[in-house]
Amino acid sequence: MRDELLSRVLSLLPTGGDRPELRAYADMLRDYPTRGGKGIRSELLLASARVHGAQPGTPAYEGALWLAAALELFQNWVLIHDDIEDDSEERRGRPALHRLHGVPLAINAGDALHVSMWEAVLRAGVPGAMEEFLFMIHRTAEGQHLDLSWVEHGEWTLHAADYVQMVELKTAHYTVISPLRLGALAAGTAPEMAFTEAGLALGTAFQIRDDVLNLAGDPAQYGKEIGGDLLEGKRTMIVLRWLEDAPEEQRRVFLEQMRRDRPAKDAAVIAEIRTWLLDSGSVADAQDYAHAQAARGLTLLETAFQDAADPQAARELLAVLRDLATRDA
Amino acid sequence: MRDELLSRVLSLLPTGGDRPELRAYADMLRDYPTRGGKGIRSELLLASARVHGAQPGTPAYEGALWLAAALELFQNWVLIHDDIEDDSEERRGRPALHRLHGVPLAINAGDALHVSMWEAVLRAGVPGAMEEFLFMIHRTAEGQHLDLSWVEHGEWTLHAADYVQMVELKTAHYTVISPLRLGALAAGTAPEMAFTEAGLALGTAFQIRDDVLNLAGDPAQYGKEIGGDLLEGKRTMIVLRWLEDAPEEQRRVFLEQMRRDRPAKDAAVIAEIRTWLLDSGSVADAQDYAHAQAARGLTLLETAFQDAADPQAARELLAVLRDLATRDA
Repeated sequence: MRDELLSRVLSLLPTGGDRPELRAYADMLRDYPTRGGKGIRSELLLASARVHGAQPGTPAYEGALWLAAALELFQNWVLIHDDIEDDSEERRGRPALHRLHGVPLAINAGDALHVSMWEAVLRAGVPGAMEEFLFMIHRTAEGQHLDLSWVEHGEWTLHAADYVQMVELKTAHYTVISPLRLGALAAGTAPEMAFTEAGLALGTAFQIRDDVLNLAGDPAQYGKEIGGDLLEGKRTMIVLRWLEDAPEEQRRVFLEQMRRDRPAKDAAVIAEIRTWLLDSGSVADAQDYAHAQAARGLTLLETAFQDAADPQAARELLAVLRDLATRDA
Repeated sequence: MRDELLSRVLSLLPTGGDRPELRAYADMLRDYPTRGGKGIRSELLLASARVHGAQPGTPAYEGALWLAAALELFQNWVLIHDDIEDDSEERRGRPALHRLHGVPLAINAGDALHVSMWEAVLRAGVPGAMEEFLFMIHRTAEGQHLDLSWVEHGEWTLHAADYVQMVELKTAHYTVISPLRLGALAAGTAPEMAFTEAGLALGTAFQIRDDVLNLAGDPAQYGKEIGGDLLEGKRTMIVLRWLEDAPEEQRRVFLEQMRRDRPAKDAAVIAEIRTWLLDSGSVADAQDYAHAQAARGLTLLETAFQDAADPQAARELLAVLRDLATRDA
């Protein structure tokens, strides 16, 4: 995220106090925010605020900046808890927080960042913003529950439509819909109805792009381990579609690996499964689906922004979203 | 908690939706709140609101009721995460949530209840209440970090003063200080300065009582496993004071057990350590300390409430606090 936002984020965090343990705690809270996330969602929110007429330097834009800081804090506490829930190894090129400090301290650090997120929302003083965060986080938690419960219960009788429903809840709201809506609220205008449909399409495209990069990305650019989704047993569109037509033997090998806990999975077999997925064309198919969704979402937004207060900001916003769905990292 | 509060709490929770997984999710969120917690903190908040002149049936008392619901939601999400962090077995006489559904789903359920807590704070519409919750949760998380980091790092070079500092942060704010202050805010008055000193004393007394019950309580009444704190390696005042004068051999056996993970601890040895603690008099000493702190806190509040708008409510409030420090469950 940009420096201006990072300093707002850090200004809200506890600074430690009189004990070395509490200084270590303050360091834990600063860790993920200072690892250099791309800040896509906060850029989107700020662009949306400008599109709706909030100009930098005005009180309305100041409100948008605090909401953008809140969105970054949201992203960071969710990532801490998400990394525990998935038992991920890495985040932004470094070990996940719970792998550095253990699960108990990391859960607590995530909770503290969650609190600081609400502090940023309060600081923004934007009418309707608190309600938007409440709605957004409830949807994200529902999507997260779907994702995690499939892993927890070994559920593989799922189809692409299940994946899309999960991702719409888990990713689309906080990645696209709410940033667009929060920008409008900061500018003092009612969010366009089209944001929801456009955001569901673009959010799905964003998540599929992430799934593709997880399998086929450049390890030097992608901040998590390549193939990590397979180790974590993630139900992606890529895997679900491949399973429908996979040769019986490959399917059997795959499901046998997926029944194992992460440490018991065979790295060589997982690497082979990855080549099956790439060779099957299901990665390319999912990417095509994502491109189509992204194009649909962008068209909806172009229409919504036809009479935007700031056409230049509208072009920037659409460029951010286009990057989202086609990025390499 | 009382039925009136429980129905407010439940009214804020997601109800499920179109998928069986999301109905299971809704059930998870309702689980802890419906296990019948005593609701001491919400009673304290409501009594404080009446002491400060908010009468049942008025909009001010309606605000207090939503804040009381928020405090119950706070208690419940913290307990879910706390039970994971301590790997507790039981909560309110049933298996802890993560033992029923696994850690990932339970972390996520706690996060969702955290969000609903803010919804209740928003619904209350009480000026200053959001800031009070922010302050309260930050202190609780700092205390939780102290407690957990001592376990994580095998830290035993601690004294009673360290325990008191931890408990003041972790327990006193959300159990006594903030309930008293929130009641005043709901009634539209500035909280008395004396609440902080009184609350630190009474909160410490409350936590020590809990520690005593965990070692010496009636298993039929106490909702968690007796001796659970020893299995979890908790640094209580009882243990820290005993360690200072314990026979060298007992000390060695104790520290050897504490170096083990919970499942590797020897139940028979832990049971023996429990009898050493009881026989040493350190349980009785800690109880004496708690009684003195409780008496000091009650005296401070009696003075603060001398000219209370509702003297009957003041007597009720003091009775709730007296119960807190002397309860059997």
